[in-house]
Amino acid sequence: MQKKGQFITLEGVDGVGKSTVVPSIEQVLQAQEISYFITREPGGTPLAEGIRKLLLSDWKEPVTAEAELFLIFAARAQHVAEVIKPRIEAGTWVICERFTDASFAYQGGARELSLGFVEKLANAVHAEYWPDLTIYLDIDVEIALQRRSHRVQDRIEKETIDFFEVARETYLKLAETQPRITKIDASVPLPDLNRAVGKVVERFVAQHT
Amino acid sequence: MQKKGQFITLEGVDGVGKSTVVPSIEQVLQAQEISYFITREPGGTPLAEGIRKLLLSDWKEPVTAEAELFLIFAARAQHVAEVIKPRIEAGTWVICERFTDASFAYQGGARELSLGFVEKLANAVHAEYWPDLTIYLDIDVEIALQRRSHRVQDRIEKETIDFFEVARETYLKLAETQPRITKIDASVPLPDLNRAVGKVVERFVAQHT
Repeated sequence: MQKKGQFITLEGVDGVGKSTVVPSIEQVLQAQEISYFITREPGGTPLAEGIRKLLLSDWKEPVTAEAELFLIFAARAQHVAEVIKPRIEAGTWVICERFTDASFAYQGGARELSLGFVEKLANAVHAEYWPDLTIYLDIDVEIALQRRSHRVQDRIEKETIDFFEVARETYLKLAETQPRITKIDASVPLPDLNRAVGKVVERFVAQHT
Repeated sequence: MQKKGQFITLEGVDGVGKSTVVPSIEQVLQAQEISYFITREPGGTPLAEGIRKLLLSDWKEPVTAEAELFLIFAARAQHVAEVIKPRIEAGTWVICERFTDASFAYQGGARELSLGFVEKLANAVHAEYWPDLTIYLDIDVEIALQRRSHRVQDRIEKETIDFFEVARETYLKLAETQPRITKIDASVPLPDLNRAVGKVVERFVAQHT
């Protein structure tokens, strides 16, 4: 039987530096000659990208917490079925920026929809495809806000500091209780952060190849 | 306290004649000087109409049953919050073509996602806004297919006869178990169908005004 690929996710509040550390993951996988695929949520298929556009646009109507959660999981269902599952089954590792932990943090925590409800949707969509390793980049939300201040802010990024505080607290609680999640201090200088991420991935690779 | 408006939904497989019988409902409400609002799903707000477009478009990728269900409930969450709830609370009656019973029939039944899972989403979105009266128009799916054969078929309407057979069976089971649902034989000539719908609404109005 073909060995399955591993599923690695990157999490953290907007501006923490998820995209920035991706190359330090790639370096480790390349050194080990592991075939991998990089993707991000929400999105990853034509329909899922269409949903992403609806999700992040500004609407005159308030977007309900439920609509936001369902849109994200609709996109996730397509992404898992069309992109993540087939690659993992073919032995390719998948690196994904944001996945269900973001739904726990943002919609479950910050939007107060409950983690249990988010978990029900997650199990309907990817019961067999939970991440094998999740790297959670932790940072003070004020610093993250500064780091993304030069970018155009989407609908969710325009939320209040309090919103991101609750998202961070939820991420921290998940990191404490889920062994698959490794928390990394993202307030350190970038070379140190890259080194820390690289080390986590090296250890994981050593255990899974 | 202001009296709440009543919530009436029209259900049945594509082509059965839901839009056609709306005027026979309006006649009864107008005769009783009841203020009402007519709407239909999926859709009803700018975001929900955007979701409708994604739902009914043809995609190269197969649309998963889960994505379809979540998209419909995302649209429904917006429709309930922005359109249905405020009108009912203001005392206006709401007549809606298709609502959660369609999700039971199509995604729960025909797409095999289970009625229990659909009910969980429904209770997250409209626990306090289940229809007060549902008129289910029942017909042989082959006749319904003929009736809509002159229209351009959307992604879901292009499904197989078997798909609509299961949707119909699910509707029939719901009609047997849910007292709020009245089944009407929609195979009769249109004047008879309109008369039958009008009678059901008259009886309901007499009990609720």
